[in-house]
Amino acid sequence: MSSSFGRLFVITTFGESHGPGVGVVIDGMPPAIRVEITDIQRELDRRRPGQSALTTQRKEADQVEILSGVYDGFTLGTPIAMLVRNTDAQSKDYDALKQVFRPGHADYAYDQKYGVRDHRGGGRASGRETVGRVAAGALARLALATAGVTIVGGTVQVGTVRAERRDWDQVEQNPVRCPDAEAAARMAEVIAKARDDKDSVGGVVEMVARGVPAGWGDPTMDKLDARLAAAMMSIPATKGVEIGGGFAMTEKHGSETNDVYDGDRFVTNFSGGIAGGISNGADVVVRVAVRPATSIGKPQTAAKAEGGTTTIEIQGRHDPCICPRVVPVAEAMVAITLMDSWLRQRALRGRDK
Amino acid sequence: MSSSFGRLFVITTFGESHGPGVGVVIDGMPPAIRVEITDIQRELDRRRPGQSALTTQRKEADQVEILSGVYDGFTLGTPIAMLVRNTDAQSKDYDALKQVFRPGHADYAYDQKYGVRDHRGGGRASGRETVGRVAAGALARLALATAGVTIVGGTVQVGTVRAERRDWDQVEQNPVRCPDAEAAARMAEVIAKARDDKDSVGGVVEMVARGVPAGWGDPTMDKLDARLAAAMMSIPATKGVEIGGGFAMTEKHGSETNDVYDGDRFVTNFSGGIAGGISNGADVVVRVAVRPATSIGKPQTAAKAEGGTTTIEIQGRHDPCICPRVVPVAEAMVAITLMDSWLRQRALRGRDK
Amino acid sequence: MSSSFGRLFVITTFGESHGPGVGVVIDGMPPAIRVEITDIQRELDRRRPGQSALTTQRKEADQVEILSGVYDGFTLGTPIAMLVRNTDAQSKDYDALKQVFRPGHADYAYDQKYGVRDHRGGGRASGRETVGRVAAGALARLALATAGVTIVGGTVQVGTVRAERRDWDQVEQNPVRCPDAEAAARMAEVIAKARDDKDSVGGVVEMVARGVPAGWGDPTMDKLDARLAAAMMSIPATKGVEIGGGFAMTEKHGSETNDVYDGDRFVTNFSGGIAGGISNGADVVVRVAVRPATSIGKPQTAAKAEGGTTTIEIQGRHDPCICPRVVPVAEAMVAITLMDSWLRQRALRGRDK
Amino acid sequence: MSSSFGRLFVITTFGESHGPGVGVVIDGMPPAIRVEITDIQRELDRRRPGQSALTTQRKEADQVEILSGVYDGFTLGTPIAMLVRNTDAQSKDYDALKQVFRPGHADYAYDQKYGVRDHRGGGRASGRETVGRVAAGALARLALATAGVTIVGGTVQVGTVRAERRDWDQVEQNPVRCPDAEAAARMAEVIAKARDDKDSVGGVVEMVARGVPAGWGDPTMDKLDARLAAAMMSIPATKGVEIGGGFAMTEKHGSETNDVYDGDRFVTNFSGGIAGGISNGADVVVRVAVRPATSIGKPQTAAKAEGGTTTIEIQGRHDPCICPRVVPVAEAMVAITLMDSWLRQRALRGRDK
Repeated sequence: MSSSFGRLFVITTFGESHGPGVGVVIDGMPPAIRVEITDIQRELDRRRPGQSALTTQRKEADQVEILSGVYDGFTLGTPIAMLVRNTDAQSKDYDALKQVFRPGHADYAYDQKYGVRDHRGGGRASGRETVGRVAAGALARLALATAGVTIVGGTVQVGTVRAERRDWDQVEQNPVRCPDAEAAARMAEVIAKARDDKDSVGGVVEMVARGVPAGWGDPTMDKLDARLAAAMMSIPATKGVEIGGGFAMTEKHGSETNDVYDGDRFVTNFSGGIAGGISNGADVVVRVAVRPATSIGKPQTAAKAEGGTTTIEIQGRHDPCICPRVVPVAEAMVAITLMDSWLRQRALRGRDK
Repeated sequence: MSSSFGRLFVITTFGESHGPGVGVVIDGMPPAIRVEITDIQRELDRRRPGQSALTTQRKEADQVEILSGVYDGFTLGTPIAMLVRNTDAQSKDYDALKQVFRPGHADYAYDQKYGVRDHRGGGRASGRETVGRVAAGALARLALATAGVTIVGGTVQVGTVRAERRDWDQVEQNPVRCPDAEAAARMAEVIAKARDDKDSVGGVVEMVARGVPAGWGDPTMDKLDARLAAAMMSIPATKGVEIGGGFAMTEKHGSETNDVYDGDRFVTNFSGGIAGGISNGADVVVRVAVRPATSIGKPQTAAKAEGGTTTIEIQGRHDPCICPRVVPVAEAMVAITLMDSWLRQRALRGRDK
Repeated sequence: MSSSFGRLFVITTFGESHGPGVGVVIDGMPPAIRVEITDIQRELDRRRPGQSALTTQRKEADQVEILSGVYDGFTLGTPIAMLVRNTDAQSKDYDALKQVFRPGHADYAYDQKYGVRDHRGGGRASGRETVGRVAAGALARLALATAGVTIVGGTVQVGTVRAERRDWDQVEQNPVRCPDAEAAARMAEVIAKARDDKDSVGGVVEMVARGVPAGWGDPTMDKLDARLAAAMMSIPATKGVEIGGGFAMTEKHGSETNDVYDGDRFVTNFSGGIAGGISNGADVVVRVAVRPATSIGKPQTAAKAEGGTTTIEIQGRHDPCICPRVVPVAEAMVAITLMDSWLRQRALRGRDK
Repeated sequence: MSSSFGRLFVITTFGESHGPGVGVVIDGMPPAIRVEITDIQRELDRRRPGQSALTTQRKEADQVEILSGVYDGFTLGTPIAMLVRNTDAQSKDYDALKQVFRPGHADYAYDQKYGVRDHRGGGRASGRETVGRVAAGALARLALATAGVTIVGGTVQVGTVRAERRDWDQVEQNPVRCPDAEAAARMAEVIAKARDDKDSVGGVVEMVARGVPAGWGDPTMDKLDARLAAAMMSIPATKGVEIGGGFAMTEKHGSETNDVYDGDRFVTNFSGGIAGGISNGADVVVRVAVRPATSIGKPQTAAKAEGGTTTIEIQGRHDPCICPRVVPVAEAMVAITLMDSWLRQRALRGRDK
């Protein structure tokens, strides 16, 4: 089940970048939750390419079809399968890459693992696989909303530019999806420059889940932070994850980072809402490191399948910074992870939360 | 199965800090692997308290007993259960904490999740739970060694002091377990000062797995890096994890961070040995952020179970910096994760690697 | 993951009887296996309705579409999603049943479990769910064939008529799918009579897997027979399963039923090819008890959702004996179960079998 | 996880017959359930050898020790490990069998699967493995009792002698554990004769679970009957399982076997309390076919590991009919299965049942 995530709220994605389509099956969605297709389409629209000059110009409508599990506007408690057809698959763009391993890409590793691969557009390693995650995340969010849990997210770093504020309402107001309007403008410049240089740039995406009750997460191996870390690192192009105070805490002392609970609320949140792997009622805060996109137009030395090397200039339409499009994906994975933890807590205690 | 980790090499730990004992069951260890109890005890000795003036002075011999799965010096392919009795459980130290939630600790979250808890020494949330991980990791290492895979690890940061070198042979030569002898001395000073201040300090632990063949890891959800991230973040007191270039890569461009494979080997290793979630033959490099230990002697404001707050000074014998003792635990979890990925690749391809 | 089966070869079915479609995702299919769509369609054609006067006259072409995981005629090792659209869904037939629980059916249990349900044609409880199983089984068979494993099956009992012979070549020569031509004729009469009486009749289906090497199956909980039993009992309308000598052995003595291995082969096969939960190299023999179909035209007393009872005569087009159509489904589930055991044995031993 | 059973209430057994001990880890036991060690010991005492002249004379006190997960008389919600030491392991009895595969036993299959084995007393394939199941089942029963669910069981057939009555109070009044006192006497004679003939005899064990609410069980793959079938067939020496009407239903018509629900209760129970894989509120009825014990004293032809055959007369102390000792094991597995289904239903609906 290498394409499945979760124990009780289980998503299984399928599809290659240039095959017939991509999608997901959700097994474990509770019954009797109201679903409108627009709730799902809205999230897919946030993820799809071509939203601004800062993202790939590949055009995909990414229209989702629900194949099962929803009847008369409500979930049935049975598996929900959703399908998005691939329509703008310009496979020819990739003919030249059939026998070449692109630097930084998964081409070589896939070849070594499977012995065969669909080289077109990264096949299964393509960011297109995340369509299924986003669709599943939309449903997780609908269910979580009934428990009062909401998730926001945004790009908080691009290159060396960092967001100083967390105005989450700003996120959809700028193409970088940054919660700091001023920083967003500077980030956009960094991305545009990378694009013009036929290069790419990295960044950091942050998610905050609000309203998570204390008690979610399953020590000792399925701690909420462990599951969130797995969720984040399963997203293409991620190379690090941190919770709450994260790496910055490592330079500090316990007397500084022990969150004080005053009997009513936590005064600080170095724990990022998770203690001992269990939510403690504070906001759950997750950050994920996104590497510079590996598809760049600059000439690069690449290994050939037959041995030896060649110089390639990757054609096609690629994202100079994938952070803006990682945002809805990472939010979806946070939602999916929380959903699973919630259902497990319901099992443990025999009550709603 | 919240205390289980892995799909095919599955470890399940059990035990509370002050209960009868702690241990592990490994289900999925391949048969016919030579095991000596000293191989396991050696790793437990690296983890146990009281090794130096820099660690807790709690005395535990941590003698392991193999209860099943090994016969006549070889694994049987059946579950291997191992038990370590708790012997130095000074439960009285904790009486005062029965109705108090220690700052930064999991006390409150456990209380909210389970409704009951064993308050003595953190119960299940204690670092003592890692005994089972280390024992299981020792067996994973024996198996991995037959495939030519070895794992090293060490403390590479304490507070603001960073190791500049990776002389892995140095690790067991200093109490900090730092691969840089010079930095180790400065780290030791930082830790001693924290101890003397009744405080604690954080740090970073790094592991390197060598000899991992290309092809291990299971996209898209059980990518090798996703599994490693889950493994690391399931260790008590961790708040971040990164692979290869990690968070530092986010400030760079793709033209800098795309590892070039020259047809023979990778010239750089920003990917940390993992591309698309699959090992690529380069060293697998993992770093984990360790927060300052939450048990400190300094007076702190703590919430009371009955409501309101009190001031506590945590007594008992605690680690001012847990990095030196996290090293064998994190190494064990890397071994366990790799072992699982190896077995899965054997299933996929029907051959040894 | 209640709609998933398997650990390493994992199938997840989806779809309601009268929704947009039914299908399956297979996660764990090994790469580089040759697949032709006709291999899958052939098995679906064996399962689909309307094959003879003895089965339901519902017309469904059941054309399968592969959505992912196969490229250029070979499996990629990535998830294989397959979809069959529902085309002959006469939902109106079921309007009268919306508030009635049909006797013997799952209507009431579904209502109690989920609180909501798609009442049309049984929804998820419909035999139509098995489309996905058969499609997945077809792929399992392709993979198993590369290991020399083949599976045959047939109806060996209808009502009180029992097959005396096992001429497996006969199975597709008669509409009952009986491996005994003479018995098949009498079975057909029994079924026709039940149909004409607006009633239904039960039976037994037997499968034999040949060429299974010794060593497949995973004690102590995932024994091959335990997994086969789960597989069989997950098929709609099954109420019993037995391996080899089965229930008949319970009347005998150990001196009669201990299979003698003469150093070369087993002289008898009371074990049904499985000892201690592990295949022993003999034919694997499984029988499954199929209850009389619950959809019958005779007047029946049925409970109403609002309370009280009513008399119903189930309209629509139903199978008077579902054994002929269970055959391909049960074969598929045997194949899927064996496939999973095979992959697990590959993981355990690091070699092909 | 081949020695694990369950999704949310997960038991993992460990131990070989003649190793240091046998036991179990339960992961998923809800917190705050009152546990007394006598509740567990009572069930183990029902399973242990030497209870009567009809069972093996091997003497094992089978004293259980709880290693974790219980504090101050209540479950913590953390893993519960339990250990029973092996004390009467007469390993020498088995020296002669080191290079011989006993007929009907798992010796050969284990050898082929693992390449190595602990030949003493069947090692992992021994009935002794069921100690852990019974201990876990005792805890499942404690939890189920809080939901009003109770389980009874007994031997309902030995050889050709069948119980005509179901006086469950009789079960512990006779050594056969038969719910029909009159039949029990005749069964005892059959068993005594088999013992005196150095032979063994088979039988059937039946379990009834009362008070199971409608709604437990997880279609389509983890149907309650599918899980019960897996549970039963994972018990050593079982070769068949049936629910409710079982195989006898296959000779009948739908008009006879469709259980009528009169708006208040089911008038008949051919479904055995399960419809569409979900409990329907009626008694859950399960029967399991137990083959004649394979360890018999009569001379038998056995294959030698080196090739060729020899004649063996199995020494040692064995059960001429294992049904009486299967009863507590099968009851335990029913409890474990129900427990898992219950927790899953709690997850699905967010309420206690």
